[in-house]
Amino acid sequence: MRNCARRSRARWPLSSLTLSTFGGEDIAAMDDRHRVFFVNALTGFKPASLVGTRGPDGQDNLAVFSSVVHIGANPPLLGLVSRPSSVRRHTLENITATGAYTVNHVHSGIVAAAHQTSARYNEGVSEFDAVGLSPEYSERLKAPYVAESRLRIGLEHRQTVDIELNGTHLVIGEIVEVQVDEGAVAEDGWIDLGALDSVTVGGLDAYYQARRLARFSYAKPDRPLRELD
Amino acid sequence: MRNCARRSRARWPLSSLTLSTFGGEDIAAMDDRHRVFFVNALTGFKPASLVGTRGPDGQDNLAVFSSVVHIGANPPLLGLVSRPSSVRRHTLENITATGAYTVNHVHSGIVAAAHQTSARYNEGVSEFDAVGLSPEYSERLKAPYVAESRLRIGLEHRQTVDIELNGTHLVIGEIVEVQVDEGAVAEDGWIDLGALDSVTVGGLDAYYQARRLARFSYAKPDRPLRELD
Repeated sequence: MRNCARRSRARWPLSSLTLSTFGGEDIAAMDDRHRVFFVNALTGFKPASLVGTRGPDGQDNLAVFSSVVHIGANPPLLGLVSRPSSVRRHTLENITATGAYTVNHVHSGIVAAAHQTSARYNEGVSEFDAVGLSPEYSERLKAPYVAESRLRIGLEHRQTVDIELNGTHLVIGEIVEVQVDEGAVAEDGWIDLGALDSVTVGGLDAYYQARRLARFSYAKPDRPLRELD
Repeated sequence: MRNCARRSRARWPLSSLTLSTFGGEDIAAMDDRHRVFFVNALTGFKPASLVGTRGPDGQDNLAVFSSVVHIGANPPLLGLVSRPSSVRRHTLENITATGAYTVNHVHSGIVAAAHQTSARYNEGVSEFDAVGLSPEYSERLKAPYVAESRLRIGLEHRQTVDIELNGTHLVIGEIVEVQVDEGAVAEDGWIDLGALDSVTVGGLDAYYQARRLARFSYAKPDRPLRELD
């Protein structure tokens, strides 16, 4: 690791910035836990989601994920990156077996309960019961929603893409139902995640609340941005 | 669209929640722009990143992305979801041609400049010049960093996974360098994205600032969570 005190060449006004530089070899030399904390934060802010599934035996399962990613709007597709070796493999097994799962936004009132779902509970324990959240069922879906969540997405599994580089999987589902607090949906379809109090994750274990800075107009080369309401 | 006024069965204390329900057929019936706004917000909070590349002709390119996703820590891998048809195809072409790119966190001071990079500038225009950000070069990498960014990641392209469902691509790179404001890195490796003022995106065009709620200990079935400093 080199510490490089440097002057910014920025045209944008910046207070002085003191950067630490880590090369690939520095990251490889970190101990495992240190590396996991470090690299998981590099991605930037991630969504905090509870993924609900039901096993073929009828057992409900709930697990916190921070790797939900937008794949496309038409058809509406969401991706989920998952490691096969993690405690969350029940989620993957259930998705593969039943084809159904839910993605539920976490808000500040349920953030500790959401994090607690990452504990390795024994088979036969529903994380809903263990952490004090309530399953809620829809006619459309063989998977439980989180009743406390203010934005819940019901999905049907479409494809799992294997990422051979490191044995992870990109699980892709199509959105078949959305339940959302009605005050948060704008006239043009945009949903204000701040109004929902959806939280965001930094790294593995830190949760943040978000305050809106600005919503901008569609950018054009020859026109300044406007702020939308 | 049905509006379902319902009572929450939550054990968690909740004020009354009034949900709107959208089925898959409601989403399919939205006009394109409405659907794009709606579905892009469903994912939850996303990272705001500027991706820097240099073309084989030496032309620098900069584009805002909100689809960076953690793939793994060892080796350290980041993914980026991209549509082939978007203006950001220059980014994909350059990554494929040179194998090098950078991911730079956006903070509140450069959020408008970052959004402006999404305008369709003519070939031969560097978005750095057009929006007033400064390229900065490292010996390790044939791609420009954003000098104004407080967390910059240098990557080497490893694999592009085609997602046949909708023609998107998951571009995966290995992290070969990290430059980060040194005060934001904790002793255990975790990086406080709030201290960096990294911003987060809700939907396509709304930017949010994050305030830390809590960092939690590793969850165990039989032990209450502790808050870490």
